[in-house]
Amino acid sequence: MPVTFAPGPSHLYFTVEDHIKSAFREGIPSISHRSKTFEHTFQSATEGLRALLGIPGGFHIFFTSSATEIWDRSIQNLVEHQCVHFVNGSFSKRYWEIALQLNKQAQKIEAPLGQAFADVQVEAGAELIALTHNETSTGVALPMDFINQFKASHPQALVVVDAVSSLPYPQFDFSKIDSLFFSVQKGFGLPAGLGVWIANEACLTRAEALQKNGVQIGSYHNLPSLYANAKKNQTTETPNVLGIYLLAKVVNDMLQKGIDAIRRETDYKAAVLYQALAKSSVALPFVADVNARSKTVIVANTGDHTTKISEALNRKGMLAGSGYGELKASQLRFANFPTHSKEQYEMLADTIEALT
Amino acid sequence: MPVTFAPGPSHLYFTVEDHIKSAFREGIPSISHRSKTFEHTFQSATEGLRALLGIPGGFHIFFTSSATEIWDRSIQNLVEHQCVHFVNGSFSKRYWEIALQLNKQAQKIEAPLGQAFADVQVEAGAELIALTHNETSTGVALPMDFINQFKASHPQALVVVDAVSSLPYPQFDFSKIDSLFFSVQKGFGLPAGLGVWIANEACLTRAEALQKNGVQIGSYHNLPSLYANAKKNQTTETPNVLGIYLLAKVVNDMLQKGIDAIRRETDYKAAVLYQALAKSSVALPFVADVNARSKTVIVANTGDHTTKISEALNRKGMLAGSGYGELKASQLRFANFPTHSKEQYEMLADTIEALT
Repeated sequence: MPVTFAPGPSHLYFTVEDHIKSAFREGIPSISHRSKTFEHTFQSATEGLRALLGIPGGFHIFFTSSATEIWDRSIQNLVEHQCVHFVNGSFSKRYWEIALQLNKQAQKIEAPLGQAFADVQVEAGAELIALTHNETSTGVALPMDFINQFKASHPQALVVVDAVSSLPYPQFDFSKIDSLFFSVQKGFGLPAGLGVWIANEACLTRAEALQKNGVQIGSYHNLPSLYANAKKNQTTETPNVLGIYLLAKVVNDMLQKGIDAIRRETDYKAAVLYQALAKSSVALPFVADVNARSKTVIVANTGDHTTKISEALNRKGMLAGSGYGELKASQLRFANFPTHSKEQYEMLADTIEALT
Repeated sequence: MPVTFAPGPSHLYFTVEDHIKSAFREGIPSISHRSKTFEHTFQSATEGLRALLGIPGGFHIFFTSSATEIWDRSIQNLVEHQCVHFVNGSFSKRYWEIALQLNKQAQKIEAPLGQAFADVQVEAGAELIALTHNETSTGVALPMDFINQFKASHPQALVVVDAVSSLPYPQFDFSKIDSLFFSVQKGFGLPAGLGVWIANEACLTRAEALQKNGVQIGSYHNLPSLYANAKKNQTTETPNVLGIYLLAKVVNDMLQKGIDAIRRETDYKAAVLYQALAKSSVALPFVADVNARSKTVIVANTGDHTTKISEALNRKGMLAGSGYGELKASQLRFANFPTHSKEQYEMLADTIEALT
C-alpha cells in the first residue's frame, strides 16, 4: 500500500487497523449508545482530547458527523444576524457561503491565495469571527498572534477557529478563542465520518439566548441538546460509535507518544520539506511569507513539472496530493500529519530535491 | 460473542467483518470523496439499494449521518408551516418533537402504546404526513393499507415514511409515498453512523419552492445540494466513506441471497417467535392486534419474568433487547433482522417456550 500525502482523507494512523480488530472483538459496532460501554468510550475520547490538546474546563467537547456539519451548526447556533469570515481559500470560503445560505449577513475579509491577511477591519456588530487556522487548499496557516488579537478588540464576538487540517499539531491559547473544531480524517489519521466541536460556556449562553429570542437553532444537534447529552457522556442520536471508539484509541496512542514529540517531529518534517523546496529546481513553496506557511499542509508550485514529480514519487510508493481547484495541475500538496514518519518525509524531500 | 437481539444497533450482518478487511486492503478509509473510486462505491450502494428495495426512477437516494438527521432535514426542507405526525411510541414522538423544535405547527395524532391508529383526521393544510412504519419502542407496524391511503385523501401533502427498524423487509408501494428513510445499524446490520434518505421529485420541488419563499432549508444537507452532488455520485461533505462502502457490500450480499428469501425467512422467524409467545406462560405478545404486529421488532410482555427469561437466554449465548423507556423492566424486545438465522430464532423460541 503506498503512503499518501494527500491532505485528507489522510493516510491512516498506523495503529488504526489493529484498533478496528479490537473493536470487533469487543463487539463495539453493536453496542447501544445508551450503554455504559458507550459512555466509557465517549469519556475516554473526550478526556484524551482534553489532555492532548490542553482543553481547559469551561470548554465542552461534542461529536458531529463532519466539520462541514460544524460550519452549519456553529452559524445556526451562534449567529442571529452578523458574522465575519476571513477567507483565503476554498475551505474558508465554503464556511462563509454556508453563513450566507443560512440567511446571515456574512462579511467576507479576503486575502489573495497563498498570502496572509492585510485587512483586519471587522464590522461593528459581528457576533462571530470565523478563522480558518489552516487553509487546506493553499497551505496558509494563520499565525497564533493573528488569531489571538480578536478577543481583546472585539469582546462581543465569539472567536471560532476551524483547525480541520492542523490539529493535533497547533497549541491554541483557549483564553483567546471560544470554539475550535476539526474532523478526524486529517491529522488524527482516522476514517472519515466524525467531527469534533469544542465550545465554551459563552457559546452555550449565546445559543440559549438565540433560542429565547425565537431564532431557530436546530433540533437534535443544537448546542443545548449536545451539551445536555455530553455531560452524561452521551449523544442525542445514534452516532458513529466505531468512529468515536477509534478516536479514543488513537488519541491514547498519541498521548503515549507525547504531544511534544508529535510537535517536534512535525516541525522537523516541515523543515526538511521546505528546505528541499528551497533548493529544488522543479518545485518551490507556494506560500512566500515564511510566517504564513503551514507546517501541516505544505503546498508546492510545480508548474510543468507536476506530472514528473508525481511519477517519481509514485515509483517510490508515495502519493502526492494534487493542487486544489484551479491549481490542480500546477501544484502539489503534502500533508505532514502524525502518521507520516520522519523517514518518509526524508525520502519525500530527497526525491524532490534530486529531480531537475 | 453472544448473538444480540436488541433492535439496534443490531448484531452485525455476518459478512461485515470480512468487508472491513477488504476495505483496509483496498485503502478505502483514505480515498478522497472526490475520487472515481468513491463515485463507484456511491453508485454501487445506490444501485444496489434501488434493486433490493424496488426504488423506481424519480426517487433519489441520499446519505446522511443518521435517521435522526433525516427527521431534522426532512422537516427543514419539506415543511413551511404545518405537518402532521402519527405518534404511537418514543421514536414517532421524537420526530414530532423535532418538528416543534424547528418552529413548525406540528399536529400529533396519537394511538396508545402497542395499538393501531383509530383516528386518521389529518388537518387541512398539512404539508407533510409523517408515518413511522415500525415503532421500534413498542413493536407496532403500520399496515401497508394504512400507509397507502393518504396519497389519495391528501394530495397536497408529502407522505414521508420512517422505516428505520423494518427495512429491508417491507415492500413499499412507491406510488403511494414521497419519501422513505432508514439508518444502517438496524436491518442492514452495519456499524452506526449512516442514514439513507430516499426522496422523490415532489420533495425536491417542495424544497426549492421553500427556498424561493425565503424559508431557511439549511446548507450543505439541503435537498437541492444533496441532489446536485448525488447525481454525480458524490456527497457535499466528506462523508462516512467506510460506512457507504460497507452498505454497498452488504446490499450486494443481500441481492445475492435475494430479497424474496429474506422476506420469507423474516416471516418464518416472526411466526416461530409469535407462536412461542402464544404458548408461553412467562411472556405474551405486547401487540394484541395481529395486523399491527411488527415482523422485525417483536415485543413481549414479560412482567415479573423479565430477568428469568433474560438469564435463560444469556446462558445460551443470546441477548434480548430490554423494553423501552418506562417498559424497560416489564418487556423484552427481539429484533428479527436478516442477520438473525432461522436456527437462532428457533433456539430463541424454544428457550422461551420451555420456561414456566
